[in-house]
Parts: sequence; structure tokens; C-alpha cells
Amino acid sequence: MRHFTSVHDVLHFQRLLQEAVEMKNNPFGYATAGQHRTMCLLFFNSSLRTRLSTQKAAQNLGMNTMVLNINEDSWKMETQFGVVMNGDKAEHIKEAAAVIGRYCDIIGIRSFPALKNRAEDYADSIINQFIQYAGVPIVSMESAIRHPLQSFADIITIEQYKKKARPKVLLAWAPHCRALPQSVPNSFAEWAVAAGYEVVVTHPEGYELNPAFTEGAVIEYDREKAYRGADFVYAKNWSSYVHYGKILTDDPAWMVSHQNMTLTNQAKFMHCLPVRRNLVVTDSIIDSSDSIVIEEAANRVVSAQTVLWNILKYL
Amino acid sequence: MRHFTSVHDVLHFQRLLQEAVEMKNNPFGYATAGQHRTMCLLFFNSSLRTRLSTQKAAQNLGMNTMVLNINEDSWKMETQFGVVMNGDKAEHIKEAAAVIGRYCDIIGIRSFPALKNRAEDYADSIINQFIQYAGVPIVSMESAIRHPLQSFADIITIEQYKKKARPKVLLAWAPHCRALPQSVPNSFAEWAVAAGYEVVVTHPEGYELNPAFTEGAVIEYDREKAYRGADFVYAKNWSSYVHYGKILTDDPAWMVSHQNMTLTNQAKFMHCLPVRRNLVVTDSIIDSSDSIVIEEAANRVVSAQTVLWNILKYL
Amino acid sequence: MRHFTSVHDVLHFQRLLQEAVEMKNNPFGYATAGQHRTMCLLFFNSSLRTRLSTQKAAQNLGMNTMVLNINEDSWKMETQFGVVMNGDKAEHIKEAAAVIGRYCDIIGIRSFPALKNRAEDYADSIINQFIQYAGVPIVSMESAIRHPLQSFADIITIEQYKKKARPKVLLAWAPHCRALPQSVPNSFAEWAVAAGYEVVVTHPEGYELNPAFTEGAVIEYDREKAYRGADFVYAKNWSSYVHYGKILTDDPAWMVSHQNMTLTNQAKFMHCLPVRRNLVVTDSIIDSSDSIVIEEAANRVVSAQTVLWNILKYL
Repeated sequence: MRHFTSVHDVLHFQRLLQEAVEMKNNPFGYATAGQHRTMCLLFFNSSLRTRLSTQKAAQNLGMNTMVLNINEDSWKMETQFGVVMNGDKAEHIKEAAAVIGRYCDIIGIRSFPALKNRAEDYADSIINQFIQYAGVPIVSMESAIRHPLQSFADIITIEQYKKKARPKVLLAWAPHCRALPQSVPNSFAEWAVAAGYEVVVTHPEGYELNPAFTEGAVIEYDREKAYRGADFVYAKNWSSYVHYGKILTDDPAWMVSHQNMTLTNQAKFMHCLPVRRNLVVTDSIIDSSDSIVIEEAANRVVSAQTVLWNILKYL
Repeated sequence: MRHFTSVHDVLHFQRLLQEAVEMKNNPFGYATAGQHRTMCLLFFNSSLRTRLSTQKAAQNLGMNTMVLNINEDSWKMETQFGVVMNGDKAEHIKEAAAVIGRYCDIIGIRSFPALKNRAEDYADSIINQFIQYAGVPIVSMESAIRHPLQSFADIITIEQYKKKARPKVLLAWAPHCRALPQSVPNSFAEWAVAAGYEVVVTHPEGYELNPAFTEGAVIEYDREKAYRGADFVYAKNWSSYVHYGKILTDDPAWMVSHQNMTLTNQAKFMHCLPVRRNLVVTDSIIDSSDSIVIEEAANRVVSAQTVLWNILKYL
Repeated sequence: MRHFTSVHDVLHFQRLLQEAVEMKNNPFGYATAGQHRTMCLLFFNSSLRTRLSTQKAAQNLGMNTMVLNINEDSWKMETQFGVVMNGDKAEHIKEAAAVIGRYCDIIGIRSFPALKNRAEDYADSIINQFIQYAGVPIVSMESAIRHPLQSFADIITIEQYKKKARPKVLLAWAPHCRALPQSVPNSFAEWAVAAGYEVVVTHPEGYELNPAFTEGAVIEYDREKAYRGADFVYAKNWSSYVHYGKILTDDPAWMVSHQNMTLTNQAKFMHCLPVRRNLVVTDSIIDSSDSIVIEEAANRVVSAQTVLWNILKYL
């Protein structure tokens, strides 16, 4: 593997899943794979799970890690080309990427969308410019449009808990007080379809995701119908893609509650975290024995370690 | 040792002191004790000594370390239960603790009190919720009410300098321009009594500490009487416990000065640092040969390393 | 080597350059030189290249590293002596330096000038107080008046690309929208003269550097004459030393452009980065094949590693 920014970078999906199981069972079995290798974790935005789990994964493989909050620790970055840089941005991404690429063997990048301009966000320019200019493998730690380390961990988790070969996996929109990116649902839909699950997406009208990401999934506006028989409920809020970046409703009927969950096949509850309790999901559901959010988060180390190992192999 | 939040977690006090001496004499004698183990240092508040010395201690034992300024690097944390999380706090401590516990073998936590509500602060809820939900050993790097790694280092330092079996140790309140927690004096009193010293606490009226922490110590309001014959003067400001969080006086007579120190048995001057010069202590005292504040700070590595080693033994 | 704050700390200039070449060719050849040694990187100001390259250099030598953004992670520092510390600064540099010196074997410090008071800035007091009080080797990661790790990397880069024994090296002032320190040009002039190059400095009137740093260099106000025949153009903005901290002109004729560069002997373009495109240098020049800014930045690891190795030898 060269870069890791989406499921499309995965050559052998089932083999990757098998490697993840091996990595989970034997986390220090490859403790010298990253010897004398350095990973830089660059954050344009906040992070808890991604920050810690990716660092842990790199250290498990024997890599050195360097963490940079780019706006606070260093300089604001210009991403446009041809401009006169006389504003608040002291460094161009073209130099920054090339320089960091000379200091590190792998670069992880987290960069959220601004949710103002859809075309700009979906160009995913920060991660793509790092790919173009850094000269080393780039790992998405959540870009403007995808969160593949999260999605891979989600699939590892579903594989761990599923009781049938092809479970019904429901990606369920839930309310939120702030406008959030579409990166997690975009990415989860892609991975869940690639995994061969029966994938259903449910949300109020106007919350349709970019169809390029939900190809192979069923969009079901009837929430009750969508929940019925689900084996996994993957809850997530996102802002509108159609009315870009907008919050269209806060209807609490879409919260993951006992009322919705009783329609399912005793579904496992999943969420990428952080999650707002009693807004996205009720206390009773997230605290129930069917909630697997902590194991899901724990699998973030496994997905990151499997990806890094696959990249290290070809360095 | 499972958790380390107070002197009450110490089973064999004298043995712990002996181990500290060994650790100080041979800091790399246990350099593989923490192999393949990770410590996460979580900061809700500023830190210099604790941050660096605990990291150093963990590295001396061969552990990996990950440092997180939780509010700046990740998400603001909800600590109340049952609330609708529609404000500025994106993650509940229950999930955060459980997730971090899956990424680390030991978690260090620094969390200051708000000094608004005594009952809330003294519930010490952040560190206690981590103990309840993280599933791994928790080390206090200063909680709302105690600072045990500091106190342990203080005792190591007194043992190093004392000239009699049972020195007179004075915990001396001193003025300050800001309202400070009671954690350091609370904790120091507990440890100094446990060490078997003659412990005297002196402060203006209204600055009485919670008596649960000063049991076994003498409270002496007469400052001159208190200083007289002291072998160690441990200076510290704290805000009122009785009139909770309030500053009651800024009387400079309480500053640690030549005038006060001449009453002592050529006492060693101690302070946990940072210290405000010419407010808490005069330049002449902190710069004198009887000032042992730097050695005291250096012993922070020793106390942290001894504690971590005791926790690693039982992992 | 004990401390590293300027070219004057270098005993054998040519030997240091040879060691740099060896270090560059074999970065892991001294991977145990720093075993059980810790470097602390203290930042009073922003940093990207210095932060990552120095950390990388220390790790290549097997050292542990701890990074501290001192104002954000810990306490604001008092640097004056004899004052009553009742303001916003909680810790005196005298204690901070001494304590950090007990936790680390080498301390790297970045501290920019305030550009308000020339005498204060040129006393370079933060780095000098660390030298006085820390008790361990101090490495400048850019002080108020010099940036020697950058300058050493610059010389390594010139040695790598030069085609004649004594190239003409032009330090060329360029416009900028903010008032910047003189540390980079001060330091570069010292090192380039020490390297034996033909050193020319060009700038508008009023931008004369402190002559102590440019001794041995030619000051040439005629920009065209200065550029003519140059083998290397080292561009940099700085604010006035004479009219201290002031911006005197923003004349775009001083930008490094095709017009200026055609006068040279097909000069290589250098800059310490970050650089503001189309203000300091045009896109066409920095993007040309004669631009060696990325290799120059890459050599920051080499200069830091060579310096740290020389310090470790005498620990």
C-alpha cells in the first residue's frame, strides 16, 4: 500500500481483514517492522481517539512518532496557488508538505471541511496536496470527506460481532446541535458495501449523502422500516450534502432510543465517538450490553497498525 | 499498587521510601520493566514539573508515553450524568475514560478544582470517574484535592536532608495574588504525618484545611511559635477551605523571609514550585544554601518512577 | 562542545562539516550515542522545521525527547530579577531552568525577540539565563539574535551544491508584511564568513545589520551589483536594526524575481522557510530547478544531529 485515504487504496479487502485479526491477537509480533522509521501526525483539527490510537499503532510497530498541531505549534498554511502571501498565512502547503516529507517516512493528516463551499471541501485539497508534494506515504486521519481508519475499525468490529455471513447494517442519521462533516458516513458506507453487508442508510429528506459514496446501499427514508431487522445500528449525525453544511431538522424521533432499537434484530449499537448523549443516543442504549462503542474505539489501534504495517512493507 | 491517588494507596510506606532510594541511585536499573507498556498523560490544566518528570520516569522504565492536553488537543468533556449534551462539551467522560483505557496501560491525570463549589471539588470526580470507567491504573498528577507524586517527592527530599529521626516539619501558609487549590498542603500534611514527622501547620485564621487531611498535625496560629525550632519549612499558599476558594489576607508578614527563618533550627526551605518570588518567599531565602527546592523538584522523577514501577509489577 | 548558540561554539569548523557529511550518509550509525539520554525541546514561539528536525535528530541518536510549548503547556515565565511576582507570570526562569536541567541532559530553546527594545533583545537573556541556571548543555533553536542550527544547515547545503572553492554568496534582503527578527541573517552572515565564502549582503538603506555579525562580509546597497555573479542567493526579510524593529520599505523590486536572478551566475535560491510566496520570492523562482530550499530544510536534521552528537560525546 502506498497511501491510505479510502477503501479504494485497499487491494485485497479480505486479506486486510485477516491481517487485522492477526495484528489484534499479536500486537507486538511486528515490533521491529518500523525500526528507524518515523511517523508524523499532523492535526489541523481536534482529535482524541485518532491521535492516541495512531500513535499507539506506530509505537507498537517500533516507529518513532512526532505529533504536530499545525496551527498552534507552527504556522497557518496557505493552500491556494499563485497568491501574494501577505495575510495571516506564513507558509505554503507546497513547502510544508515537501519539508515534512523529508523528516518522516509516513505522514498522517487530519483536516476537517469548512462546510461553506461543497466543491472546495470535496476536492479534499489538503490531503491531496500532501500526496502530491510530500513524497512519502500519506495516511488519512480523517479528511474533509472520508475517515477510512475509522471505517476499517468499524468493519473489524462488525466482523467480530456478526452472527450471520451478511448482516443488515443500518447507517442511521441522528440529530445534533452543530453542523458536522459527512466524512464518517461517506466512508462507512463505502467500506460496509465493500465488506458485502446489506447496507441501509436512513435519514430525513434533504440529508442524502453524495451518491458516489452510497453506491450499493439502500436509502430508506422510512425510519421504522429501516431499523426493522437491523443487526447493527451505526449512528451518526451529519449536516446536509444537498443544502450544503446546513442543519435541516433536530427531530428527536431520529435519536437512537429504545423505541427505535426494539424494531431491530437486537442490534449492536455503534458510533465513532465522541457522541453527545441524549441527543444522538439515549443513555439507556449506549450503556446497554448491546453497545459496542468501546470495543469499536479499541479497534482503532488495530486498523491503524494494520494499515501502517502494509505501508512499511513497501518502504 | 493498583491506583495512586493518595498516601492511602501505599501499602508499605517505609519500603516505598527504600525503593525510591534504589531508583534514585540506579535510574536505569529497571529499563525494561515497562517494555511494550504505554502511559498516557492527560492534562486538564497547565504543568511543567509534573509533565516532564512523569514522562521522564516512564521513559526510564522503558514505557512509551503519549501526552494529551485534553481541552486543546481533543474535546471538552461532560462530567455530569443524565444530561442532554447540547452545549460546548462534545464527549462524556465515561466514554473518554473507557477509550483511553483501551489505548494505555496506565493513565496519569491532572485536574485542578474550580474553587467555586467545595462539595463538588472535594468529590474529586474527574479522577474518580477515570478510576471507575478506564479499567486501568490511574495515577494522580494532581487532582482537585491532592498532589501525591509531589508529596512523595517531598518526603524523599526530607529523608535525604534530615539530621534527626523525627524532624519538626512546618507547613507554612504564605500570601499569593491568586486563589489557589488546597491540594498540595492537603497532600503534604497526610504524607508528612504518615512519615512520622512532627508536623506543624501555620496559617492565618480562616485558612484551616479540611481536618481529614491534617489529622496528626498540630495547627498553630502563632506564626513565630510555629517557625521556632523548625527543621524544614514547607511554604505554600492556598485559598480558604472554610470560606471556600476565598483570599482572606495578603499580609506580607506571612511571606517566608529572613525574619521568619531566623526563628528556625536553620531550616531547609521547601516549595513545590512554581513559586512567586518576593510574594511567597524572598529572593534571599530561595537563593540561600538552605533552599532545597531544586533537589525537591528533581525528586519528582524518583517519586513518579517508584510509583510507576510498583504499578507495572502488578499489570 | 558544551553549548551551541553560535558559530563561536564551534572549535573545528571543517571537521564539523566533515562530520555532517558522515551523519548525512549514515544517519543511524550512531543510534546508541544518546541511549538513556533525554533532550527537552522548549518553545516560547512557533516552530515547524526546527521542532521536527531537532526531534528527529535526537531520535536518530537514540535519545528520548520531550517537547514543551512553555506558555501554553506550563506557566508564563518571569525573566527580571528582584521583582515582586504578583502579575501574570507564575514562575521565575531561574527555577524553571534549574528544574528542567534536572530532568534532561540537553535543552533546546526557541525564543524570539520582542522587537521593542534593542538592548534587551540583544542581551539574548532567555537563552543566556538557561545557560547560567540549567546546569546542562543548551542548544539554540533560534534565539533573539541567532539561528545557528539553521545557519549550519545552510552551510552544509552550500557545500553540497557549490561548484567552486569560494562561491559568491549573496544574503539578499526581501520585502515582508510583518516585522521580523534579525536572527537568521545575523547568524547566516557569521557562518558564511567562517566558511570562507565571498559574502555579500544587500538591502535598502536603513536595514544594516549589527556590524558585529557581518564582519568580513561586503555590504552592497546597489542591488543589481550585489546580485551580479552570485552563486547562491540567500533571501530573507528582516526588520531594521538601526531603526529598531521597524519596517522601512516594501519596495517589490527587492523581491527575489526572475529580473534579479538573471543577473547571477545561475545562482541557487535558498531561504530558511517559511517563506511568503510572491512577496519574498516569486513562484517562478522558488518552483525552479535552481531552488534548493527543500534540500536546505532537509539538512536541518543533519545539522542538529551533528551538533547533538558533539555534545553527547562530552556528557
